Amino acid sequence: MPDLRYDVLGIGNAIVDVIARADDDFLVRQKMQKGGMALIDEGRADAIYDAMGPAVEASGGSAANTIVGVAGFGARAAFVGKIKDDELGRAFAHDIRAAGVAFNTPPAADGPSTARCYVMVTPDGERTMNTYLGAAQDLHPADVDPDTIAAAAITYLEGYLWDPPHAKEAFRKAAKVAHEAKRQVALTLSDAFCVDRYRAEFLDLIRSGTVDLVFANERELTSLYQTADFDTAAKALRNDAKLAVVTRSEKGCVVVSKSDMIAVPAAPIAKLVDATGAGDLFAAGFLFGLARGRDHRTAAKLGAIAAAEVIQHIGARPEVSLRELAQQNGLPV
Amino acid sequence: MPDLRYDVLGIGNAIVDVIARADDDFLVRQKMQKGGMALIDEGRADAIYDAMGPAVEASGGSAANTIVGVAGFGARAAFVGKIKDDELGRAFAHDIRAAGVAFNTPPAADGPSTARCYVMVTPDGERTMNTYLGAAQDLHPADVDPDTIAAAAITYLEGYLWDPPHAKEAFRKAAKVAHEAKRQVALTLSDAFCVDRYRAEFLDLIRSGTVDLVFANERELTSLYQTADFDTAAKALRNDAKLAVVTRSEKGCVVVSKSDMIAVPAAPIAKLVDATGAGDLFAAGFLFGLARGRDHRTAAKLGAIAAAEVIQHIGARPEVSLRELAQQNGLPV
Repeated sequence: MPDLRYDVLGIGNAIVDVIARADDDFLVRQKMQKGGMALIDEGRADAIYDAMGPAVEASGGSAANTIVGVAGFGARAAFVGKIKDDELGRAFAHDIRAAGVAFNTPPAADGPSTARCYVMVTPDGERTMNTYLGAAQDLHPADVDPDTIAAAAITYLEGYLWDPPHAKEAFRKAAKVAHEAKRQVALTLSDAFCVDRYRAEFLDLIRSGTVDLVFANERELTSLYQTADFDTAAKALRNDAKLAVVTRSEKGCVVVSKSDMIAVPAAPIAKLVDATGAGDLFAAGFLFGLARGRDHRTAAKLGAIAAAEVIQHIGARPEVSLRELAQQNGLPV
Repeated sequence: MPDLRYDVLGIGNAIVDVIARADDDFLVRQKMQKGGMALIDEGRADAIYDAMGPAVEASGGSAANTIVGVAGFGARAAFVGKIKDDELGRAFAHDIRAAGVAFNTPPAADGPSTARCYVMVTPDGERTMNTYLGAAQDLHPADVDPDTIAAAAITYLEGYLWDPPHAKEAFRKAAKVAHEAKRQVALTLSDAFCVDRYRAEFLDLIRSGTVDLVFANERELTSLYQTADFDTAAKALRNDAKLAVVTRSEKGCVVVSKSDMIAVPAAPIAKLVDATGAGDLFAAGFLFGLARGRDHRTAAKLGAIAAAEVIQHIGARPEVSLRELAQQNGLPV
């Protein structure tokens, strides 16, 4: 077994967020499903960009945000995802490396441009996303280096990887390599509509033990089991998964294992500014705690403070040191 | 005389800001003059970007920020500045148009990329800037359309235009056209180091009446007259300029005219987050007030609330409606 070089390695869509404030009327006029993530083609991307207000660009991508969070806690982190060698791609690479994350996936020299997610933030702080996958569609199994996967305690995969055509093969390859090296595999269900697109496959990943740990929010969980009742869905998840965490926004989270179900409250916030990245940063804290051998409750508390930080400003990456934030909150790092 | 189509038209460097937090040690290691703006070449730009932390990209440019602010108050605004037809250039054009500003300068098809300003924000909220002028260097007199200038009540020019080789010719052309059409011309001195580079020319612009209104902060003013004493410099300015406004950070501003000197306090803020754009947005409010025929004190109050808004968040463009902000503060719009 190779040396442990990374606490957490993430594989996901490498995306630059284009973030603007919008009112609810804008979402209605643009036929956007509030709070969800829709996939769009280039023509629709251009039309949305023309219609939306002044924006800022910031590196994003669900698993990438998580991995930056893991590094922010002081852990060793790596990311695999496909950019193009263009201005946005170079910004993505700069930002994730500047955050201390190892990122060595070769950029695409041609083909579609680096993926963009148009994020509309409404006055209530909710975010509605439209993603043009672009170069992220070209993530292939060849981009997954077995030695690197085997060197990571946890490999973390986003459900969104089911959207690009070859990425699920990269996902399955990584999961296989990780388990052969006696490492852990984690999955986030990503989005309720994503779950709706790939329900059978996600259930199979969980039930077959291809993933050891599942992250879901309430909407994703109830979409997975096609029930409106949280408790019913949570029981079903407990039956299917080895370990799972269900996040419930301001109600905190529930850690679901065979032995027990632990509820952990959300961390207090002054004001919800932009919900983008809440789930991603919760996962960062939980994965960091797990990689450091903490109990589930402590891991969930680490997740809660990271999520609370990221929703109090625009953008999906932390603006302060999560390591110091944990220390200020009396949590182990 | 053509119809009045714009309250304020700005000419300036079209720049995308690349903003990151940095500590004071970083500035020292990188030999950066805290609080100033340094011009850099492409090699230095790459070196700074490699060394700096995770960043966000947001449209900037001093006069462009001002003009977006003018539009935010509900006035008719236009901007002239040179981008390249690349990803950052398209972002600049999108953002300024989405803010309601007329922007029709043809982008450069080739040559250097769209200008970038690397902005380091230290924990005290001060910003230190390094600008790679790129495509902004290619602003030529031909980019200044006389009919458009003549249709603007005030043409606003940034001192930074003295840096690109041909932009000062565009500046002089615009000032001439404006005065022939009986319009007003305003100038910001931009930066103390910029004043140091072009002191004689700036003094000539003011003394010759090429500009009717001058904006300066304390450091720019004392650099202009090469004295450490504010009162001495203010008296000299009063002698030279028809009308001037000197901004003094938390001490507010002084409106300097032949008839009197009016001090107006700064608007209160909760926390200084990022000083970028403070002077630009002050100018926006003052120019808006002037274009609407308000007295100097009211115009300065409009400037003060716009400056207070922009320094309480990251980035140099307002995040809320300045029109509504003015109304909430009992100021006329």
